[in-house]
Amino acid sequence: MKDIFFLLFIALGASATAAPTQINCLSWRLAVETNNIPDWKTVPPQCKSYVSEYMTGQQYRDDCNAVVDAAIEYAKTLNVSKDGKDLWVFNIDETTLSNVPYYARPTVGFGATKPNVLKFESWIKEGKSPAVPGALRLYQTLLGLGIKPIFITDTKEEFKQVRMDNLKKVGYHSWFKFICKGKNDSSIYSEHSGNWKTQKRAELVKAGYRLVGNLGGWGDIIVDFLMRTYKMPNPMYFF
Amino acid sequence: MKDIFFLLFIALGASATAAPTQINCLSWRLAVETNNIPDWKTVPPQCKSYVSEYMTGQQYRDDCNAVVDAAIEYAKTLNVSKDGKDLWVFNIDETTLSNVPYYARPTVGFGATKPNVLKFESWIKEGKSPAVPGALRLYQTLLGLGIKPIFITDTKEEFKQVRMDNLKKVGYHSWFKFICKGKNDSSIYSEHSGNWKTQKRAELVKAGYRLVGNLGGWGDIIVDFLMRTYKMPNPMYFF
Repeated sequence: MKDIFFLLFIALGASATAAPTQINCLSWRLAVETNNIPDWKTVPPQCKSYVSEYMTGQQYRDDCNAVVDAAIEYAKTLNVSKDGKDLWVFNIDETTLSNVPYYARPTVGFGATKPNVLKFESWIKEGKSPAVPGALRLYQTLLGLGIKPIFITDTKEEFKQVRMDNLKKVGYHSWFKFICKGKNDSSIYSEHSGNWKTQKRAELVKAGYRLVGNLGGWGDIIVDFLMRTYKMPNPMYFF
Repeated sequence: MKDIFFLLFIALGASATAAPTQINCLSWRLAVETNNIPDWKTVPPQCKSYVSEYMTGQQYRDDCNAVVDAAIEYAKTLNVSKDGKDLWVFNIDETTLSNVPYYARPTVGFGATKPNVLKFESWIKEGKSPAVPGALRLYQTLLGLGIKPIFITDTKEEFKQVRMDNLKKVGYHSWFKFICKGKNDSSIYSEHSGNWKTQKRAELVKAGYRLVGNLGGWGDIIVDFLMRTYKMPNPMYFF
């Protein structure tokens, strides 16, 4: 009898503590990937292990490759002109270079803890990012087709050189432009002008270039009126 | 030794026949849901069983509910005015009414066979569609908040009454407008004007209404410059 009371006490105690809400982490990931849940800050604590397993497992690699396959199929249908003005926009973080080794650190927890800019920047300075699965395959295909790759990245000007060296080290040997985020450039999305990346793309179009494709995250493809877009999977952070 | 040759023969035979390409169906679904693979015609034959299991299982229900949860959370943040001009746009097929019983038929194979308009229309005439998981919950929340639901649907004018009866039967009792697809309305997407649904939404805005949200499939939310959008999961067909 005492045992029953003890068990009841344990059971009530467990339900009384702030138990995290049940959540289907695959549904959460889909909602994030389709932008049904936009502008989110951190991975729900209940989904930390799920995101960890996903990002380090085969499914993430296959998902990246499926996006790249679709982009390559599309690129091959394009009539590339000979004036050298056909450009393809690449983002860097989780698009061409992977920060998974950083996100795997216990203090970072695959996006489940609040971002720490200084720690992230010291990781960037190490220049040790591997390539994102599949991305090099698209990059090489585009070069073969005569479409020039350009990078538009949230990387700060002060990390430009280390980032370019990192890109070269993993196989992205050349590009037409490398556009970093300036001090006054804002990532905040405005209904009329998009964000700073939207503006940079618009400037290129105004200068006579054709942006034929864009591989990135939500921060790259939201309100992109100019071209077909592709989004790389990334359930670790929003932009 | 003979056995080894036999096994070798089998192995070579298997690789020589037109074996379907290996495909990760979860990656395919993600690429479809994020519009990385746009304007596709039928479910890849290799993914027919996967889509069948997904659409009839718990994951699809959870995915729908995750979208609805996000939409409800957003709707509750809106400052609804008292002039009755705040509208929420609902699509019908695979958004508010489910055609899964039709797609489950062996001849339809969950989108893996070529669409048959006549057979689909005779299913519509039966008026037996159940509600899509979660959608009624959003509908009811909006009514409670004073946001008026409207339907913009590819349903033809001749099926308007049966569709409205079907909606009422499953719990969508009232709406502000029910807009069907006219004979000259095109679903084909144009870069400058969107599709016929984009145009209908623009007419409503011009008439002074505020479209505060839109729940639909890709055909509803592509190039929607006017409002926040939500997409219901549907790996069975593109529009």
